[in-house]
Amino acid sequence: MEFDTIAAISTPPGEGAIAIIRVSGDQAVEIGDRLYRGKNKLQAVESHTIHYGHLYQPEQEVKIEEVMVSVLRAPRTFTREDMIEINVHGGVVSADRILQLVLSQGARLAEPGEFTKRAFLNGRIDLSQAEGVMDMIRAKTDRAMNVAMKQVEGRLAGQIKRLRQQLLEGIASVEVNIDYPEYDADAVTLQHLLEQIHAVDREIDELLQTAKQGRILREGLATAIIGRPNVGKSSLLNTLVQDARAIVTDIPGTTRDVLEEYVNVNGVPLRLIDTAGIRETEDVVERIGVERSRQALQDAELILLVFNANEPLTKEDQALIEASRGFETIVVLNKMDLERRLDREQLTEWIGDVPVITTSFLQEEGINELEQAISQRFFHEGVEAVEMNYVSNTRHIALLNQAKASIAEAKSAAEAMMPVDMVQIDVTRAWEQLGEIVGETAPDQLIDQLFSQFCLGK
Amino acid sequence: MEFDTIAAISTPPGEGAIAIIRVSGDQAVEIGDRLYRGKNKLQAVESHTIHYGHLYQPEQEVKIEEVMVSVLRAPRTFTREDMIEINVHGGVVSADRILQLVLSQGARLAEPGEFTKRAFLNGRIDLSQAEGVMDMIRAKTDRAMNVAMKQVEGRLAGQIKRLRQQLLEGIASVEVNIDYPEYDADAVTLQHLLEQIHAVDREIDELLQTAKQGRILREGLATAIIGRPNVGKSSLLNTLVQDARAIVTDIPGTTRDVLEEYVNVNGVPLRLIDTAGIRETEDVVERIGVERSRQALQDAELILLVFNANEPLTKEDQALIEASRGFETIVVLNKMDLERRLDREQLTEWIGDVPVITTSFLQEEGINELEQAISQRFFHEGVEAVEMNYVSNTRHIALLNQAKASIAEAKSAAEAMMPVDMVQIDVTRAWEQLGEIVGETAPDQLIDQLFSQFCLGK
Repeated sequence: MEFDTIAAISTPPGEGAIAIIRVSGDQAVEIGDRLYRGKNKLQAVESHTIHYGHLYQPEQEVKIEEVMVSVLRAPRTFTREDMIEINVHGGVVSADRILQLVLSQGARLAEPGEFTKRAFLNGRIDLSQAEGVMDMIRAKTDRAMNVAMKQVEGRLAGQIKRLRQQLLEGIASVEVNIDYPEYDADAVTLQHLLEQIHAVDREIDELLQTAKQGRILREGLATAIIGRPNVGKSSLLNTLVQDARAIVTDIPGTTRDVLEEYVNVNGVPLRLIDTAGIRETEDVVERIGVERSRQALQDAELILLVFNANEPLTKEDQALIEASRGFETIVVLNKMDLERRLDREQLTEWIGDVPVITTSFLQEEGINELEQAISQRFFHEGVEAVEMNYVSNTRHIALLNQAKASIAEAKSAAEAMMPVDMVQIDVTRAWEQLGEIVGETAPDQLIDQLFSQFCLGK
Repeated sequence: MEFDTIAAISTPPGEGAIAIIRVSGDQAVEIGDRLYRGKNKLQAVESHTIHYGHLYQPEQEVKIEEVMVSVLRAPRTFTREDMIEINVHGGVVSADRILQLVLSQGARLAEPGEFTKRAFLNGRIDLSQAEGVMDMIRAKTDRAMNVAMKQVEGRLAGQIKRLRQQLLEGIASVEVNIDYPEYDADAVTLQHLLEQIHAVDREIDELLQTAKQGRILREGLATAIIGRPNVGKSSLLNTLVQDARAIVTDIPGTTRDVLEEYVNVNGVPLRLIDTAGIRETEDVVERIGVERSRQALQDAELILLVFNANEPLTKEDQALIEASRGFETIVVLNKMDLERRLDREQLTEWIGDVPVITTSFLQEEGINELEQAISQRFFHEGVEAVEMNYVSNTRHIALLNQAKASIAEAKSAAEAMMPVDMVQIDVTRAWEQLGEIVGETAPDQLIDQLFSQFCLGK
């Protein structure tokens, strides 16, 4: 396809050692040459080489910046187009003005995700791979990275394409039957079609079974820490965060903003709800009571319900147990280092078969047990992200469910002895729905909307 | 020199399209090969080439990331050492884990500025050039970038080295005289020495004359907007900021944090003092009175003193005029679109020969005039940053002043007919002080301290 030449700053905004201005399109190298002065013309150099030099304001021949320019020629590039990457000393003004220079020479400011969109439109990657790229950038844990990485490699895409091929073969056999009605093989055709869709249905089921874990890996498990005041909620929070720091590296200068509301528990990213509320209260006395806990519960996928073993159970405790009913809950019985004043039998009666972990955050006891309880609740032992093809994207999960429903309808139609071309309509719909995952049948609007969620310069 | 191999993330922290992990040192390429799988071994490829491939966890052979690796061999690199730059999809986890992988293979986490420090220690750049690199990253305007760029190019360094050479020649002639006292040429030697130091003195003067402008370009001109409530202070602030946006590009997604307290007025960066105070009051009524204005004045280098032409002068106005006495001040007579109720003669009597610009921010009148008044106040017309060698760094300015003082002492000593070797001591001190600018005589402690102010990965 033919596109105009686009440019954007591809490094995060802010001051840093290096900023990169990325340019992609037919004019990329030529635009580079209008600004660059170095040993060679960029148009004369080999692909995948790096060149030291300076950028000049072309009309005034004023030296603007010291740069390293990478020349990458189609098709072995991110976009499959000619690209240059201008590597500058990373200041805000610096990167902005180089971008302005590039734009002044005829490049257009790239929309968010437009480089990846071109990789998609130029056929280098499919839609699920493009989404994987964004997942990699947003990943909160190593495991989430691994899931995204496999998606970028096209493993999910490969499987989806194979499933679509199977459906297509089924449809094709029906077409033969429709086109040559005299060749009356309705029953045989239908049988063949049903076999194909049964196989596809099974694989969709298997994929959907990974969806819950996949989505948790991708988005984090919404976790609420609740409990009466002064039972140890903030100690639990701090303990989890400290442990997470040992995994998610603590390099000075890297921002922790993104990670702060996440903790990594044995590879399961917990997205902690209302941590601000818990932190607020650290200084004085924990003031989070039942009311606030109830609010935190609304979006929770996991509840860590904390009790103080040193105090008798109260009505407030009972109210919290009631509030958490119907949620995945782990009970944390804290302050086990102190004298036990809590009635375990009473607790068991109230909570039923919810698992109980006894801890003393003060003496750092029971923490491993708690973390294991959390990760085992969501990941079966021995199942490693490395081996599995997870479906992690909500859009993919929805489309798989839709395809599954279409296939179910096709089956019903077949069982109800509907004409085979009626069955075919349902199968074709399933084929289209799977196609939307990889982008083969996705409407332009959807594609535009998906890429607009990408970051600038990607 | 021989150093260990260092690594750091060289892109700003946060989510972005690209993150770069930079590795420098003897082991850089070898470490890369332990992690990288692609078409070729990195050790086998030519310098300044880029290679697509994947990084693997070396013990487990688990694919970790899709990467582009740049191989840059000594000496044509930023540090003059072997370097690789690993270009990854720019997420926080992504960049961190690649850095961890690199560190696990024997690289050490680089200290802030350590790459640039190596460029200095390996003799590629001098200290003033290294400081220029940091100035480029921190530059707030194009003009500041140009000043920093010339420093990086070594123009200041070249001039300083020439001046030191001149002093050295003077010193050498004295040495001859001391070593061969029988060759009695004291008077001739002294004459020669004085000529040399006179010439150096003149050039130091010329450099110091650029210092004020240079420092303003580098750090911004501390500017206070003061005036009674409701005279138009916040309108003035908004007008300046809006105009600045037209110059400092407004690209969606780039952070404005760094720029927000700066406005670019015809290339002069104004660092606005107490803008928060002014903004706070936008919603209701401007509450900043004389007291707060007085505080804002403490650090001001320029005062924009705003009056309302539609109201008679008050005692408060008079108090503000008194408070601003002794500062560089420009009076802004605003609301000229309304009926004039302010007594101009009274104003003139109170302010003396302070320039007055009449404006109507509401009708966008007088703004160009105001901006010109500001920039002309600090930059002589026709003097372009492009042609001049500015001294912008406070450290350099201090050392130039010290060198100037040493030279003055040498002159006095000579005039007082002190022995020539006494004069020589002062000249040698000047030579050392100039040497500290370029880092040739700088103590290790100073060097460590300077580079520690750099950003990570630079």
